[in-house]
Amino acid sequence: MENWRPSYRLLKYSFFDRRANLKFLDSSRTSTPGRAYNFSRSCELFQQDVCFQRRKFSTFLRGSGNGVMASLQNVDDNRCRIGYRNFASMASTTVRNPSFSVINSDDIDYFKKILGESGVVQDEEKLDDANTDWMRKQKGSSKLMLQPKSTQEVSQILDYCNSRCLAVVPQGGNTGLVGGSVPVFDEVILNVRGMNNIISFDKASGILVCEAGCILENLISYLDNEGFIMPLDLGAKGSCQIGGNVSTNAGGLRLIRYGSLHGSVLGLEAVLANGTVLDMLGTLRKDNTGYDLKHLFIGSEGSLGIVTKVSILTPPKLSSVNLAFLACKDYTSCQKLLYQAKRNLGEILSAFEFLDINAMDLVLKHLDGLRDPLPSSTHNFYILIETTGSMESHDKEKLEAFLLQVMESGLVTDGVLSQDINQASSFWRIREGIPEALMKAGAVYKYDLSLPPEKMYDLVVEMRGRLGTEANVVAYGHLGDGNLHLNISAPQYNDSILSKIEPFVYEWTSKQRGSISAEHGLGLMKANKIHYSKSAETVKLMASIKTLLDPKGILNPYKVLPTSLLSHS
Amino acid sequence: MENWRPSYRLLKYSFFDRRANLKFLDSSRTSTPGRAYNFSRSCELFQQDVCFQRRKFSTFLRGSGNGVMASLQNVDDNRCRIGYRNFASMASTTVRNPSFSVINSDDIDYFKKILGESGVVQDEEKLDDANTDWMRKQKGSSKLMLQPKSTQEVSQILDYCNSRCLAVVPQGGNTGLVGGSVPVFDEVILNVRGMNNIISFDKASGILVCEAGCILENLISYLDNEGFIMPLDLGAKGSCQIGGNVSTNAGGLRLIRYGSLHGSVLGLEAVLANGTVLDMLGTLRKDNTGYDLKHLFIGSEGSLGIVTKVSILTPPKLSSVNLAFLACKDYTSCQKLLYQAKRNLGEILSAFEFLDINAMDLVLKHLDGLRDPLPSSTHNFYILIETTGSMESHDKEKLEAFLLQVMESGLVTDGVLSQDINQASSFWRIREGIPEALMKAGAVYKYDLSLPPEKMYDLVVEMRGRLGTEANVVAYGHLGDGNLHLNISAPQYNDSILSKIEPFVYEWTSKQRGSISAEHGLGLMKANKIHYSKSAETVKLMASIKTLLDPKGILNPYKVLPTSLLSHS
Repeated sequence: MENWRPSYRLLKYSFFDRRANLKFLDSSRTSTPGRAYNFSRSCELFQQDVCFQRRKFSTFLRGSGNGVMASLQNVDDNRCRIGYRNFASMASTTVRNPSFSVINSDDIDYFKKILGESGVVQDEEKLDDANTDWMRKQKGSSKLMLQPKSTQEVSQILDYCNSRCLAVVPQGGNTGLVGGSVPVFDEVILNVRGMNNIISFDKASGILVCEAGCILENLISYLDNEGFIMPLDLGAKGSCQIGGNVSTNAGGLRLIRYGSLHGSVLGLEAVLANGTVLDMLGTLRKDNTGYDLKHLFIGSEGSLGIVTKVSILTPPKLSSVNLAFLACKDYTSCQKLLYQAKRNLGEILSAFEFLDINAMDLVLKHLDGLRDPLPSSTHNFYILIETTGSMESHDKEKLEAFLLQVMESGLVTDGVLSQDINQASSFWRIREGIPEALMKAGAVYKYDLSLPPEKMYDLVVEMRGRLGTEANVVAYGHLGDGNLHLNISAPQYNDSILSKIEPFVYEWTSKQRGSISAEHGLGLMKANKIHYSKSAETVKLMASIKTLLDPKGILNPYKVLPTSLLSHS
Repeated sequence: MENWRPSYRLLKYSFFDRRANLKFLDSSRTSTPGRAYNFSRSCELFQQDVCFQRRKFSTFLRGSGNGVMASLQNVDDNRCRIGYRNFASMASTTVRNPSFSVINSDDIDYFKKILGESGVVQDEEKLDDANTDWMRKQKGSSKLMLQPKSTQEVSQILDYCNSRCLAVVPQGGNTGLVGGSVPVFDEVILNVRGMNNIISFDKASGILVCEAGCILENLISYLDNEGFIMPLDLGAKGSCQIGGNVSTNAGGLRLIRYGSLHGSVLGLEAVLANGTVLDMLGTLRKDNTGYDLKHLFIGSEGSLGIVTKVSILTPPKLSSVNLAFLACKDYTSCQKLLYQAKRNLGEILSAFEFLDINAMDLVLKHLDGLRDPLPSSTHNFYILIETTGSMESHDKEKLEAFLLQVMESGLVTDGVLSQDINQASSFWRIREGIPEALMKAGAVYKYDLSLPPEKMYDLVVEMRGRLGTEANVVAYGHLGDGNLHLNISAPQYNDSILSKIEPFVYEWTSKQRGSISAEHGLGLMKANKIHYSKSAETVKLMASIKTLLDPKGILNPYKVLPTSLLSHS
């Protein structure tokens, strides 16, 4: 226990306060009038990352031989080069499905008739924004964005588009990271931002019912006033919408505590490709009357139907939050620490994040104003543990007893408990500053993987063996959820490094029955990589279900599934 | 606070101890050699109930005019009278699908070839048991039960049955309450009890992978040794199997704390009607690579595929359990109390059950050895609150503070905290003895409904208005989950009472967007009532998915969906 800080004062602060204090990056972005951008945390980092890379590696833009840094470009009207930057995969091409019609003036007239002038957007600046993804890596060429105000209007739009064979991209806050929410070619953009009403909230059950276009942060604020929280929270909460969250099965910060949206979403309303409205908007915790089809629409990225309303179970807001920053000598200790934390902190554990020494070194080297919370010696691994509970004195006592135990047993070699909100923010900044530090260090190959926790770090070790001194392999992520953010930092992009990473990283993940997309979805970027994480039989059944629900394939085409598997392709 | 007991000692006991002490009914049942019956709680009650009713109302058996108490009978080879007893619905008839083949000696030879003699059961006594449901209300006439030992064997069986158009009933512990796990006619019984291996358990993540035939109690015992618990627990745990639990989306006692199986089940393996093995046996908390098809098999009662392996997230075992028995003057106070309990007890709340004065009166009148825990005056509503946490002193302090607050605010008019395991058992016996007391009181019409909590008791009040002095309307259930057990007790069954209950109870539930089957599923008994809880469009899509996955309809025919909707019917 000689390394343990003898005196500290426990912290009491809210999630929201902490997050608000973490806006250490300027998140300014040219915004379309009338549209508010309020991103914090990861999305800011991503955005900065993109801008930085674009500047630094401009020589790679357009027509680069290896395709790694190829920017988005329309090679011709029917062929789209998919640009990869941070993900660093080989570029691929997608061909426009010739069975899709092209918008004409009659179509526009029809949509104006049902939506009014304000619901039919043809303004180039607005369309440019809606055609471009948040990462500025994908860009479509849609000439039309529709903004329905009701489920009935969504139904009318889809019925019409299906009969005319007009492809449609469902869009919410357009904050996705895999190119799932923007057109690939000239698909009609159907944005549900106009459907943003809270329909009901029941304080006894904590069940919220709202329209798909509700911005997550607005729901968080609404619930905060009612004494509840959303079971999910994301960096993009200022723009992302609940319909998009549900459609992409967004993970976020609270998953270790409150589970995935498959558990939290109690019901939803969705509109199928042919305009059929599926009312599955139950507000019941228990309902065993037949197949629970809502799950088909959670995480299918708008390719099976457009989510128009959501019913969600929200937990009560708890007042006590504490944060510890700990060091472990090896990965096995990290795993054991997780086991102990689940046991001893059980009901109050709300985050369990890890970073390795390479990540810590990078952050300390590249980010200003940060210092090592445990400077007495270097450590191989660092763990952040957050607790959230209903009584501060209890949480403090549990956490102290837990820390005493894991220090005495040697699982933790050093540690500090945040004393105030500033210290907590600085701890979080270390963990959350890693993407920024990676960006400043040079080129970065990024992978978002789910792996069995006991195998997770083996990949990092193997990757270091493969790359030697060519690159710096950095690992961090949500250890509590088995989610590894594997980042490979190099002075510059080159084919030699990439060939040592891919397809090895996907094959390795596949062998361990891991997921090549833990929380971002497949979208356009990874649709053709689905076989690394799903069996051929499962993918085939997915394709059959897609064909059953959307025979003409008009909903979010080219995404999620390889188009070669779809009968309409 | 004058009503509050000033002195009490907090209780520490395990779920398992409590349950073990609740075997107040003799659960003896003629068992087939080699098959262990170890039922406790509700299933014992149901069984007793059936025997009691059968004896008391024998005059109604066979051919009764109103059909209410019609026993199971094969009217002829192709027509099955569905007997309803406790559920008291009108009897209906099901006709054998003529497209299904009849087993012949070549079929038997084939199955013996792939399964060996031991895997092919034709013994009449064993078949009689497998043909009969736990409630002894449904009985099929299958001549063949197959007991595969591996997924490959399940696949071979289904491939063959599909090609021969032989109907198949998947069966696990056969403990279902809606006739879902027994043949209606001569379907082949496919029992997975021989597939009962635990495949892996990871202590770091708490993820268990096992075969479908593992008995729930065995998994609970296994995990107990590892310091974990199953996220579900049922009265039938001694016989029910995890494959059946998953296939029926079993609810059980821990749902308020750990949520449904849609959240806990991380992956599964299922075999489709044509023998295709779908490997979706992921062990990842996060995986956003395409449609999460495992949810199709959770709660579809074996009608879309047979679950052969399951991966499930298990929570750590916590040591501190406390129980309070409280009184409220009105239903609104019960609702407010639930709200406060969620807020103040938040992370340690593990049960929130309610019963009304009619239920309490019935229990005190008909069950021996029980006394009113709050005898100073009568109360309109009683609430049981259980907490489970990692530190007893903390839980005790939280519970005391909470109780003080709700007593002072008047939400609770009286209350007592269990002082030892015996007192806790007696509190639980009041709640759990209600079915037995109802049985002793005479005829009973039973309904298992999910309703919005704020509306739940309105149905009880309306039902009392409709029935007047003809019957005693008794209400209890899992208020924390919005699950009402509505029971109507009368001296005897008669058409006048039934006509005042049905279809009113279903129509009322439907109007409130409730569920006519909160946790039991639809099975055979409620397949034709699905429209009360699901929209026509949703049911139609269910039927389309059934047809997609099982074109010949061989899997668990006549169950879940009205056969008239299926193209193969």
